[in-house]
Amino acid sequence: MSTVNHQILLVSRPQGEASVDNFKLVEQPLPTVNELADGQVLVKHNYLSLDPYMRGRMNDSRSYADPQPLNAVMLGGTVGEVVLSKHPKFAVGDPVLGMGGWQEYSLVDAHVRGAIHKVDTRHIPLSAYLGAVGMPGVTAWYGLVKIIAPKAGETVVVSAASGAVGGVVGQLAKARGCRVVGIAGGADKCQYVVNELGFDACVDYKAHTDPKSLYAALKEATPNGIDGYFENVGGAILDAVLLRMNAFGRIAMCGMIAGYEGQALPMQNPALILVSRLKIEGFIVSEHPEVWPEATQELGAMVAKGQMKFKESVAEGLASAPEAFLGLLKGKNFGKQLVKLS
Amino acid sequence: MSTVNHQILLVSRPQGEASVDNFKLVEQPLPTVNELADGQVLVKHNYLSLDPYMRGRMNDSRSYADPQPLNAVMLGGTVGEVVLSKHPKFAVGDPVLGMGGWQEYSLVDAHVRGAIHKVDTRHIPLSAYLGAVGMPGVTAWYGLVKIIAPKAGETVVVSAASGAVGGVVGQLAKARGCRVVGIAGGADKCQYVVNELGFDACVDYKAHTDPKSLYAALKEATPNGIDGYFENVGGAILDAVLLRMNAFGRIAMCGMIAGYEGQALPMQNPALILVSRLKIEGFIVSEHPEVWPEATQELGAMVAKGQMKFKESVAEGLASAPEAFLGLLKGKNFGKQLVKLS
Repeated sequence: MSTVNHQILLVSRPQGEASVDNFKLVEQPLPTVNELADGQVLVKHNYLSLDPYMRGRMNDSRSYADPQPLNAVMLGGTVGEVVLSKHPKFAVGDPVLGMGGWQEYSLVDAHVRGAIHKVDTRHIPLSAYLGAVGMPGVTAWYGLVKIIAPKAGETVVVSAASGAVGGVVGQLAKARGCRVVGIAGGADKCQYVVNELGFDACVDYKAHTDPKSLYAALKEATPNGIDGYFENVGGAILDAVLLRMNAFGRIAMCGMIAGYEGQALPMQNPALILVSRLKIEGFIVSEHPEVWPEATQELGAMVAKGQMKFKESVAEGLASAPEAFLGLLKGKNFGKQLVKLS
Repeated sequence: MSTVNHQILLVSRPQGEASVDNFKLVEQPLPTVNELADGQVLVKHNYLSLDPYMRGRMNDSRSYADPQPLNAVMLGGTVGEVVLSKHPKFAVGDPVLGMGGWQEYSLVDAHVRGAIHKVDTRHIPLSAYLGAVGMPGVTAWYGLVKIIAPKAGETVVVSAASGAVGGVVGQLAKARGCRVVGIAGGADKCQYVVNELGFDACVDYKAHTDPKSLYAALKEATPNGIDGYFENVGGAILDAVLLRMNAFGRIAMCGMIAGYEGQALPMQNPALILVSRLKIEGFIVSEHPEVWPEATQELGAMVAKGQMKFKESVAEGLASAPEAFLGLLKGKNFGKQLVKLS
């Protein structure tokens, strides 16, 4: 086993766009088993998850969570295996899911509720616990099932459709008998969403930079209007969708990645909320832990049976994390963005 | 009894702002009792209700209701008394509520469900059935009780607070143990809202034309943030309120009068819906007839006991209706806008 742990710290906050200079790679000695306190385990990370919410944590502004502290390891979900243990319920070799952060190893107080979870990798790949069967999957499940609550025959639209959350939203909605339309950036992503994930249609927003053109494309893809919208993006896409929403439509507001870099992102015509009697609800999946058992059961079963497809963008090595993360913010990833650490 | 009925027709649609030229006063002969079909009654209107929703109907655009047809009598709620009847359940002299429109008399097919309602004027003044105990009151009740669902101790804010809907919202919220803050235009309206209606505070938006100043005034009036917001206005006021909303706040979107004349009214920072995990819901009271019995029972009891106060702006004579309506759109009314017809 290595005797050092590489870590990435947040060393400054972005002024406008985030950059690699906000991060710093450092090295720390690893503890030996004798240095572990009772209840602690050392986890070697196989994969680190990169997610849009991390951009919000880099700011020192009011948001739903405390900012990421400066000069501390960037937070993030991780999957790996136990390599040292002083906890009776965790054995060396156990595959685990945790919030290990941007580093190769994490020392975890395993008796803290929720700090670390053993996972079953017999039918579900380890990395899926960071994606379709993890936080992004449960995010998709909550917004679709609890906010949009679609009925068979309704039309559901999801933005960032080829991403870790969007792909799950669409497949869950298809399984419920909906017409499902994605919005994604680029012909390759749109083809994947339709041909691989089984969406009914996909609008390439990069091919429609003019609002009227975007609206026309969306109209063609949603001949019966839109009953449910899962929002990951905001901005011009939200404006176009609002114009297509049917009466009593529901919008699950999950992300506004288009504005994470500080751009103003006004909603051009909020009067449509009234005109179409819409319900819009913002949510953060971590505030709804009660749905995890039901959601992960459905998601895990679909993945195990091959009924839930997903794609991963894998960056190699911890040092690649900052660049991969900045790419994610610009939509350069294709599917769930991971960093492979070993 | 008169032999003629004066009516106001919509003769053209506004290009931008509505004007008196969009309306035309005409005269029609009144039917005699022998000209009534079985089931018909002739109602002489005492009061005509003027309401912001009418501006939306003047446009020929997509909205929640069909546009008002051209060269037809402007629609609107009316209270009056039966003067001729060929319906066994309606006697001459019965006080009734209906949708008689902008005219002095209306001929009603009284067997059509919902076309006309007898009302009890022993403890409640007739005109209140167009205000606190009528459509505006039930609108207030629905948005507050069914969407905002406030708990005692929470802070509820309502815009257009001295208006027919806003005043009821605030008094219902006070009765539920909330801190209630109004937003209104002008020192006199604010004084009325606090001193007469019993709100805890009121922000005069006309004294704060700069967004920062408006926000500061709202912050002072809502030291614990805002849990529920009843929206009648839109625009800069909505933007300021959004910045003060607490996590899990609820917004009942009832009206956007600031945009009824066609101005663009963007919401500057919709990302706050996500950051604060807000629920925003647009509604139209006429789509929720199931709440009328419960709502009017509470409202009627409060009015009868003097626990629900309201103010009326009364214009005299049918010919004054267009000007009074245009004034309402500019906030020139003070309380429920009525036209007295006899």
